[in-house]
Amino acid sequence: MGKIEAPVPTSTSMSAAEGAGAQVTILFLPVGRSVKVRRGDVLFNVAAEGGVSVDTVCGGNGSCGKCKVLFEEFIPAPVPLDYIHLTAGEIARGLRLSCQVAADRDMVVQVPAGGGRSDVRILHQGVTRDIELHPNIRKVFVPYENPRLKEHISDWDRLRLVLPRKLRPVHISLQVLRKLPGLIRNRDGLTMVLAGRRVIEIEQGNTAAEQCGIAFDIGSTTIVGFLMDLATGAELAVASAVNRQSVYGDDIIGRLSRSQRNPEGLRKLHQIVIAQLNELIAELASRAAIPTGRIYEVTVVGNMAMHHFLLQLDSTYLGLAPYAPVIREEFVVNAGDLGLSICAEAPVFVLPNIAGFVGSDTVGVMLASNLGVGGEYRMAIDVGTNGEMALANRARLIACSAPAGPALEGARIKMGMRAAPGAIDHVRIGSDVEITVIGGLPPVGICGSALIDIVAQLRKAGLMSRTGAFMRKSELPPDTPVRLTERVIEAGQRKNTYFIVARAEDTGAEKDVVITQQDIRECQLAKGAIRAGAMLLLDEMGIVENDLAEVQLAGAFGNFLDPESALRAGLTPNIPLDRIRSVGNAAGVGAKLALLSVRERKRAIRIAQRTEHIQLSGSAAFQKAFTVAMQFPI
Amino acid sequence: MGKIEAPVPTSTSMSAAEGAGAQVTILFLPVGRSVKVRRGDVLFNVAAEGGVSVDTVCGGNGSCGKCKVLFEEFIPAPVPLDYIHLTAGEIARGLRLSCQVAADRDMVVQVPAGGGRSDVRILHQGVTRDIELHPNIRKVFVPYENPRLKEHISDWDRLRLVLPRKLRPVHISLQVLRKLPGLIRNRDGLTMVLAGRRVIEIEQGNTAAEQCGIAFDIGSTTIVGFLMDLATGAELAVASAVNRQSVYGDDIIGRLSRSQRNPEGLRKLHQIVIAQLNELIAELASRAAIPTGRIYEVTVVGNMAMHHFLLQLDSTYLGLAPYAPVIREEFVVNAGDLGLSICAEAPVFVLPNIAGFVGSDTVGVMLASNLGVGGEYRMAIDVGTNGEMALANRARLIACSAPAGPALEGARIKMGMRAAPGAIDHVRIGSDVEITVIGGLPPVGICGSALIDIVAQLRKAGLMSRTGAFMRKSELPPDTPVRLTERVIEAGQRKNTYFIVARAEDTGAEKDVVITQQDIRECQLAKGAIRAGAMLLLDEMGIVENDLAEVQLAGAFGNFLDPESALRAGLTPNIPLDRIRSVGNAAGVGAKLALLSVRERKRAIRIAQRTEHIQLSGSAAFQKAFTVAMQFPI
Repeated sequence: MGKIEAPVPTSTSMSAAEGAGAQVTILFLPVGRSVKVRRGDVLFNVAAEGGVSVDTVCGGNGSCGKCKVLFEEFIPAPVPLDYIHLTAGEIARGLRLSCQVAADRDMVVQVPAGGGRSDVRILHQGVTRDIELHPNIRKVFVPYENPRLKEHISDWDRLRLVLPRKLRPVHISLQVLRKLPGLIRNRDGLTMVLAGRRVIEIEQGNTAAEQCGIAFDIGSTTIVGFLMDLATGAELAVASAVNRQSVYGDDIIGRLSRSQRNPEGLRKLHQIVIAQLNELIAELASRAAIPTGRIYEVTVVGNMAMHHFLLQLDSTYLGLAPYAPVIREEFVVNAGDLGLSICAEAPVFVLPNIAGFVGSDTVGVMLASNLGVGGEYRMAIDVGTNGEMALANRARLIACSAPAGPALEGARIKMGMRAAPGAIDHVRIGSDVEITVIGGLPPVGICGSALIDIVAQLRKAGLMSRTGAFMRKSELPPDTPVRLTERVIEAGQRKNTYFIVARAEDTGAEKDVVITQQDIRECQLAKGAIRAGAMLLLDEMGIVENDLAEVQLAGAFGNFLDPESALRAGLTPNIPLDRIRSVGNAAGVGAKLALLSVRERKRAIRIAQRTEHIQLSGSAAFQKAFTVAMQFPI
Repeated sequence: MGKIEAPVPTSTSMSAAEGAGAQVTILFLPVGRSVKVRRGDVLFNVAAEGGVSVDTVCGGNGSCGKCKVLFEEFIPAPVPLDYIHLTAGEIARGLRLSCQVAADRDMVVQVPAGGGRSDVRILHQGVTRDIELHPNIRKVFVPYENPRLKEHISDWDRLRLVLPRKLRPVHISLQVLRKLPGLIRNRDGLTMVLAGRRVIEIEQGNTAAEQCGIAFDIGSTTIVGFLMDLATGAELAVASAVNRQSVYGDDIIGRLSRSQRNPEGLRKLHQIVIAQLNELIAELASRAAIPTGRIYEVTVVGNMAMHHFLLQLDSTYLGLAPYAPVIREEFVVNAGDLGLSICAEAPVFVLPNIAGFVGSDTVGVMLASNLGVGGEYRMAIDVGTNGEMALANRARLIACSAPAGPALEGARIKMGMRAAPGAIDHVRIGSDVEITVIGGLPPVGICGSALIDIVAQLRKAGLMSRTGAFMRKSELPPDTPVRLTERVIEAGQRKNTYFIVARAEDTGAEKDVVITQQDIRECQLAKGAIRAGAMLLLDEMGIVENDLAEVQLAGAFGNFLDPESALRAGLTPNIPLDRIRSVGNAAGVGAKLALLSVRERKRAIRIAQRTEHIQLSGSAAFQKAFTVAMQFPI
């Protein structure tokens, strides 16, 4: 006490000290442990001393090649043993043997969960993408330290200085800062939750193992949520619900007109979707047995209208030419500000839209399908009330939306219905008609996939002309099986003809399930619009159908569609069947990718920026193509 | 309608087009007018065509030198006429003749309000600082444009693209975005308010002329607010109030103990200051006749305790060794989140603190006083319950706080009082005692500045020893005027001696105003602590009193202090009187500077980072220095 104490190091002098001093900070992810060590220690030993488990057989002598770790931010130059044990791809991605790296600076190191793989396979009904896990969310455990040892260091500095300099957060909100003095003096230590450079939450004790996020696909018809473990990339739970906005209109146009120049209508639509998201959040959290507060990020895809309703943005002008959205780009808002019941400052990342009605769901499909990668031309079609479709190779990406109408969702079809229990979902016509019914129940109606099957099979069996007219019985091919002939019911004019898909007496249904000439016309309008859109994209790109290496059928509906029927019905371009794939909810997969990796998120942003929107409405070329596409190809 | 429309330009291709295209955007400030023109037009003409008034006599032929403008971001190379008409300093600062500049790229141009000066003189009771106006807040008027002309451009893009690329905002909140579709289609146009790269508000019509901010100095005793015009730097109004937190304790320690481990106490202290700030905001806005919603930024200085109360940060550990604050750095929070009734997303910039009890008020003083600039050593002393002082030249900045106690604010002094009407504020002792009284009223007490005067003058007149003891009448110098001798009242022991400063019969007061031996002891404790702190700073810096080029007395109290008395009383280091200045509310000036210029704000941050905190409490050297400093120097 005989003299004035040494000056307190300021943050500037502290940084300088780190540059020249004896200590460096190594942050191990995903466990989120920050270890301060003497500069120059071997990384493998640092991990062991810090209690971080790195795979090994040889104990760090360089012979087994198991101790590989992935470097973020700074990647050391590879040494000979790296080339011996690792593949060129692993070296390129930043993997190195930890027993060969000296901790000579601050480092951020991903420790693979096992077997040395740090990447994740995202698989969902046909779409498979291997990605590296680069979540926006990071958790870092900060052990308790006696504050008396660090004179005059503020609580916030003590929290920040745990991190390597490059990762130091620049922002903490007042709400989180207010919790800090108590937690930083708690003997259990605390875990800070980082979203990029923001501290969005601090929690008592070590909660680094619990880090979840949700990817939402908000469709006009269905909302799906995927609860993902951000540390491992594992899908913990899935939940879905019918979009209750449908009480304000089955399709987008109905809901748009409800919200146009009607703030109250918009507010209702917004409240409905927020309430449903919260129900799904609760359901997902309960299934995975995690608290909702441990959900730290949400990504969302949806069409332009769903996007505006979610954010409660005035959609008046979205429904009027020139169809200007309020915002096209990606948007981030705090969950709490949006009313979502998860960690209050969790970012809600709404993926970017393209233009017109081509929204972030299409961006999600393009991201999941890797559209715009490689030299081959590939097309993705999201079949729905609006058929959104994109065509791309690495040089150019274009997209459009075609007004298919609601026929494929069962509307305007005499016995049409959604793909719910009791719906005929697939039909095959041979010597007689074979059907499958959702839930194995007696059939009560026809859903969209069966509608496409029926027209494809009617045409194949010769019961329908290329223009879509029922043949009169007298015009049927002579070898038509009698069981089929009996199903054609003529009632005066040709337009009153109908076909019995399922007889009540055969199936135990209350009445026959039939398809009418008018139903076929409605189906032609729908598939014709989609086909015409696809053809105009080909024209715009200056290629022909056969140049397509692949056509992907996406969307919940696209997934149930039989590729052969889609081809025969003339919904898709006319290409060899083996180039057509159903890829399921690719939009949802896109949302998952964006949740698990900030690199995928950036790719989504680039896709949205690069994709040109081709406007079909009001285009005479579209009208012309549509007229042709209404017919059947063969 | 014969073919598909051209692809919509994406934001990427749009940027590329601007790089190579024919149009550039010139943003004129402070009017906030954005003008798109043909690349290569003369800037002087662009301004005229855009309705922006630039000073001129010759009409743009280069002969008058009046049309100078200040370039931000990009500064063109000076041409010969610039050297003819402008000073070297003007050229260095980025001023150019607008008639000599081709608008060959996006530009941001400040048009001086008149006379070619774009800088502002901040003057307040002695502290004068000329600064360039670089407010964080910018307003830009966006005229109405028929949206049909810009197909598929989102509303947000239309707003963003008005700005030169470098200034394009990267963030708009959901709340502001929700207002956009309506306002961007309003025929009056809209004005966007930018805080850095954030759009914090949009307003109907052209409101670019109205842009205000408030600088607050939150003292333990008094809160002062300055309403500033951010476009001109003019001070529009000042308002102040006694800090009502004083009901929870006159000094910081009392309030700290009220809030320690007591969230409810903290909440009350927080609510009081927020309520008072809102009252001052209302008063300032009313005086200047502006709506409170047109206040877009707030800067705040205050000591560490005021800082924590303002932000409602747990101050438990601030009052306990090692006196760790929750956060030391600058902090920004939205006004709405803090509960201030101005533009909801207006940033509240709380200046950074140094350490211990040395808060952002000291940083404000150092900023206003230009401490740490130049080679000479200068000291600033903020005289208050805690005396904060800083000593610096360009190489090193150090600061400390000394526990002066409340004597100088009138507490523990028999007839002490605050500097309110009726307080004797200055005293001069010659052949008799002359006093001045605040408000010209009959005197009822003594405020701090008079207390320092009294001890200085008693010592000068030989009525008091160097150790601060009243002389017995028998010991007085023989030439002591009888009128003074009569005022010394002996009452038994020496410690009961007192001195009549103002006789009731002379002044019309109800009773005599006196100063006691005990009062002098209290005054010695206060001034001794400050002097001891100053001496230790000199020791720490390795210099002596005479090396000081200047000592500034800051703070409301420091301003009333007579420099000569401060010197004689031994409150300041013993240096020639002409090196001592009273600089008034320099902390408030610092807050104003930070409000008017982001560069000053950055300087404040650097000052806080660079300044070393010298811990006095518990230091034996301080105790020793204090004992010496209690005595009088001559």
